[in-house]
Amino acid sequence: MRKILVLDTTLRDGEQVPGAKLNLHEKLTIAHQLRRLNVDILEAGFPSSSKGDFEAVKRIAGEFQDGPVITALARAVQSDIDAVYESIRQAQRPLIHIVLGTSNVHVEKKFNKSKEAILEMGVNAVRYAKSLLPDVQYSTEDASRSDFEYLWQTIEAVVKAGATMVNIPDTVGYAVPEEFGELISKINYRLKNVNDKVILSVHCHNDTGLATANTLIAVKYGADKIECTINGIGERAGNAALEEVAVGMKLRPEYYNAYTGITTKEIKATSKLVSNLMGLDVQVNKAVTGENAFAHSAGIHQDGLLKSRESYEIIRPEDVGVEEMELVLTARSGRHAFKAAAVQFIQENLADDEFEVLFAMFLELADAKKEIYIHDIYCLVNDYYTKKGKNQEETGRHSHLYELISSQVISNDVFPSASVKVKHGGEVLEGSAGGAGPIDALYTALKNIVNLDIGLVEYKITSVSRGKEAMGRVNLQLDYNGKIYPARAVDTDIIRASAVAFLNGVNNIILSLDLDIS
Amino acid sequence: MRKILVLDTTLRDGEQVPGAKLNLHEKLTIAHQLRRLNVDILEAGFPSSSKGDFEAVKRIAGEFQDGPVITALARAVQSDIDAVYESIRQAQRPLIHIVLGTSNVHVEKKFNKSKEAILEMGVNAVRYAKSLLPDVQYSTEDASRSDFEYLWQTIEAVVKAGATMVNIPDTVGYAVPEEFGELISKINYRLKNVNDKVILSVHCHNDTGLATANTLIAVKYGADKIECTINGIGERAGNAALEEVAVGMKLRPEYYNAYTGITTKEIKATSKLVSNLMGLDVQVNKAVTGENAFAHSAGIHQDGLLKSRESYEIIRPEDVGVEEMELVLTARSGRHAFKAAAVQFIQENLADDEFEVLFAMFLELADAKKEIYIHDIYCLVNDYYTKKGKNQEETGRHSHLYELISSQVISNDVFPSASVKVKHGGEVLEGSAGGAGPIDALYTALKNIVNLDIGLVEYKITSVSRGKEAMGRVNLQLDYNGKIYPARAVDTDIIRASAVAFLNGVNNIILSLDLDIS
Repeated sequence: MRKILVLDTTLRDGEQVPGAKLNLHEKLTIAHQLRRLNVDILEAGFPSSSKGDFEAVKRIAGEFQDGPVITALARAVQSDIDAVYESIRQAQRPLIHIVLGTSNVHVEKKFNKSKEAILEMGVNAVRYAKSLLPDVQYSTEDASRSDFEYLWQTIEAVVKAGATMVNIPDTVGYAVPEEFGELISKINYRLKNVNDKVILSVHCHNDTGLATANTLIAVKYGADKIECTINGIGERAGNAALEEVAVGMKLRPEYYNAYTGITTKEIKATSKLVSNLMGLDVQVNKAVTGENAFAHSAGIHQDGLLKSRESYEIIRPEDVGVEEMELVLTARSGRHAFKAAAVQFIQENLADDEFEVLFAMFLELADAKKEIYIHDIYCLVNDYYTKKGKNQEETGRHSHLYELISSQVISNDVFPSASVKVKHGGEVLEGSAGGAGPIDALYTALKNIVNLDIGLVEYKITSVSRGKEAMGRVNLQLDYNGKIYPARAVDTDIIRASAVAFLNGVNNIILSLDLDIS
Repeated sequence: MRKILVLDTTLRDGEQVPGAKLNLHEKLTIAHQLRRLNVDILEAGFPSSSKGDFEAVKRIAGEFQDGPVITALARAVQSDIDAVYESIRQAQRPLIHIVLGTSNVHVEKKFNKSKEAILEMGVNAVRYAKSLLPDVQYSTEDASRSDFEYLWQTIEAVVKAGATMVNIPDTVGYAVPEEFGELISKINYRLKNVNDKVILSVHCHNDTGLATANTLIAVKYGADKIECTINGIGERAGNAALEEVAVGMKLRPEYYNAYTGITTKEIKATSKLVSNLMGLDVQVNKAVTGENAFAHSAGIHQDGLLKSRESYEIIRPEDVGVEEMELVLTARSGRHAFKAAAVQFIQENLADDEFEVLFAMFLELADAKKEIYIHDIYCLVNDYYTKKGKNQEETGRHSHLYELISSQVISNDVFPSASVKVKHGGEVLEGSAGGAGPIDALYTALKNIVNLDIGLVEYKITSVSRGKEAMGRVNLQLDYNGKIYPARAVDTDIIRASAVAFLNGVNNIILSLDLDIS
C-alpha cells in the first residue's frame, strides 16, 4: 500500500479566510497540534505578504527540531523566494513552494504575457530556489482549466529545472472527480517516465462541494501527496477538509490501496482548536467534525442503532477523538429511543400500556419544544409517577433540580455584574456576582448558588435571526470531577439562554450523580 | 438534455437535525420558498412520527393547488402508509414514499428477519400504497452496502408491484463516486428493461464529504431524480446540498448532459431562510451558500480578480442570488487590493512612493487587527494626509464618523435597557433606551444618537472559546434607504461587540453617502 503524504495548509490557505487572522502565539499552538495530528508537511504562511506573516513562519520553522517538513508560499519572483528561504531555512527539513498559473485566463488575462514567457519565469524561479535549498515544490495554478499540453510542458520544464514536487491545484473548484482522476493519471504516467522520484500532489478547492471527492480520486489515480486544511477552511468555499480525506481513506484502504500517517484520534481536538482560535464555527452537520456528525435523531435511525451500531454508523466516533455519541431526542425519535433514554428513570414494573401513556406525554412535549434534554425526560417520568400516586419518594428527587426564575445582568466597561433568582425544590435561592464580562459574572453567580465545583470547558453562542425576533442558541461543555457534561438552551434573549443552558448542565450533572449513587 | 427531478427533503431529513424543529408557520414559510426555488418534489415530513408532524404535512399538502409534488415518508407498514395517505391526499399531485432496508446489516440485525420476509413486506407495502394513490416511491435503505442481486430482486419486485419511483439511498455515506456511478448504471440498465417509465432516484449522505460527488455522478450514469436538502442539513453529517448539486450541473451541462429546473437566483434566499428558522449557522466557507463563498481575500487572488473575474470566479455570485462580492482586506491582501479599496479616498496626485508609505501603514494595521473595515481604510488614508499636512479639509470629514467610548446594558426579565457614550468628531454624545431585549435596547439607544433611519436586517453573533477568554463575533446587515450595508466586529464582550459592529455599519453608511455627494 502506498503512503500518501499530507500537507496541511490551514496556516496559509486557511488563514486567508476573512477574520481568521491569528497572532503568533495562536499560530504556534496550531502548529504543535498539527504535529500531534502527524501531518507530513506543514505550510506555515506566505512570508512576503507581511512582516507579521514572515515572523510567524520563521518562528514555526525554528520551533521543531523533528516533526513535519516546513514550507511556505512564494510567487515566482526572486523577492518572494528570498522571503520564504529566510523564514524557513532554520527548519530541519525546509521546502520552498512556488506558485504560478498555467491556464489561459491566468497567463493571458492576469499576467498579460505569452505562455513562453510565463514558462520561463517558472523555470527561472525553480532554478533560483534550487540554488538556495534542495526541496522545491512547483504549483501549476488553475491546472484543471489549463491546456493539457502546455500544462505538461510546464511540469516537464520545472522538473528538469530541479522541482522535487509538482502540485496540481484545482484553484477555482472547477474539476469533477472522473475528469480530475484522468488528468492526474495522465500526468502521473508521463511524470514517472521523466523522473520517478518527483512527488505528484493535488490541491483542491470546494466551490461546488467536490474538493474531497477530487482529492480522493487523485489518490486512487496516482497522486503521492494531498493538500488539505482543517475543517476545509480556506479561500472562498475553502479547501479539501483534511478530516474527510483522512477518514475516507481509512474507511476504504483496499479501494484506494493507500493510507496516510494521520493520527485520526487527534482530528476532533485539532478541529476544535482551529475553530476556536480562528473564531470560525464548524457547521453542525459538517462531515466528521460537526457537532451532529455522529448524532442520530430520527426514530428509525435511533431504533436501528440501538439494535446494531453498524446499521447507521460506519465511522466510530472514538476513532476521530469524539468522546461520546449523543442521541438527541425530538418528536421524530420514536418509542425505542425514548425508552432507551427514559429507562434509567422508569421503575421495573411498568406495563406496556403505561409506557404508551408516558410516550404520548413525551410526544406532546416534543411537539411543543425544540429539543428534549435528559432532565426533561426525568421530570416527565417523575410527573407521570406523581400523577399515578405510585411513588411519593420520586417527587423528593425532583427537588434536586434547578430552574431559573429571573436574572439581571449588567454589562459595562467598569464592573459587569449579575443577579439571579433560582428555584430549587420548594426553595427560592438568590445570588449576585461580578466578573470579567457579563457571562463570566452570570456564571459565577449561578455557581455560587448551586455550590458545585463546575468548570466551564466550552461556551458557544449562535444567534441567527432578523430584527427583534433574535433566537440565541447556547452550547456549553461543563467539567465536573473530570467528566464532561454537554448542555444547551435556546431563548430570544442571549443572556437568558446562557443562564438556562448553565442550569441545564447543572441538572444533567445532578441526575447523573443520582444515578451513580442509586 | 435530460431534465433531472429535484426532491427537496429539508422538511423531513433536514428537520431531523437536533434542535432544528420547526413550528407549523415556519414549515409553511419554507415550503413556499422551496416552491419559488422551483423544486419538483417536496418531502414535507414523516407523518406517523408525531401528531404535530402529521398536521404540518397535511397543511402543506392542502396549501398548493399547483407547484411541486408533495410527498411524505412511511415505513413499510400499513399504519405509516395510512398516515401518509391521510396527510397528503389533498395535494394536487401526492406521492407516497416507502422506505425499507436491503443491506444485510439492516435486514438481519435491525429487523432480525429473513431476506424473503423483508422483500415480501416491501412488496405488500407497495401494493397497499398503490390501492390508495397511483404514485409510489420505494427507497431501498442502505442500498450502497447491499448485496447487489438481492437489491435488484427487491427493485424488480416492488416495480412489478407498482412502484413508480425507485430511490437508491447511500444511507450511511459509505459510497465513493466511481463505485456509486457504476451501481446506478447497472440498476438503470436493468430497470429500463423492466419498465422504462419508472424513475430512478438517489439519496446521498455526507458522512465522509462525498454526498455531492455521489449525487452528481449518479446523474451522469442514469439517475432521473435526486434528493437533496438546503445547506446539506440532515441526519448526522447531512445530505447532498441542493445548492451544490444544482450549481455543479449548471456549471457543466455538457458534462452531465442534464439540467435541473432549479431557479438558482433563489438559492441564497432559501439558504438564509432555512438557516434562520432552524437556528443552524452555515459555515462561512460552505460551498455556494457560505458567507465567504465568493469572498476573495488573498492578495494573489484579489489582484487576479481585479484584472479578470474569470481568474478566480467560476460561479457568478448574482446567479445564486448573492448581491455583492465582498473583497475583505487582511494582511494577505497585497497592494493591488488595498489600492482598489483605498482609491476612493486617495487624491489624484498621489505619487508611487507616497502610496508605498500608505501601504506600509496598512500592513502594520492589518498585522495588528483581525480584519480591516472600509472606514479603517478611510481613517488610514485620512491620517496619512493629516500627517502630511496636505489636506485640512479631509480632517473635517473624519469627524463624521462615530466611535464607542463606553456602554452599559442591563438585561433582565422586566425592563432591559442600555446607555451609551459615543465620540463624534470633537463631541461626546450620550443616550439611553429600553427595548424588548438587551440588544434591542442597545441598538435603539445608538440609533437615537446617530439619528439615521437605519433598519436591522440581520443580526448574527458567534462566540467560540474556552472559559473566560470568550471572543464574540457580530455580523450585521443594516438597511439604509433601501441599500444593504454589512458590518462586523469582534470583542471579548459580546454586548460590546454588538455595539461596535453597529457603529461600524453606521460609519460605512456615512462614508458611502460622503462619496455619493462629493
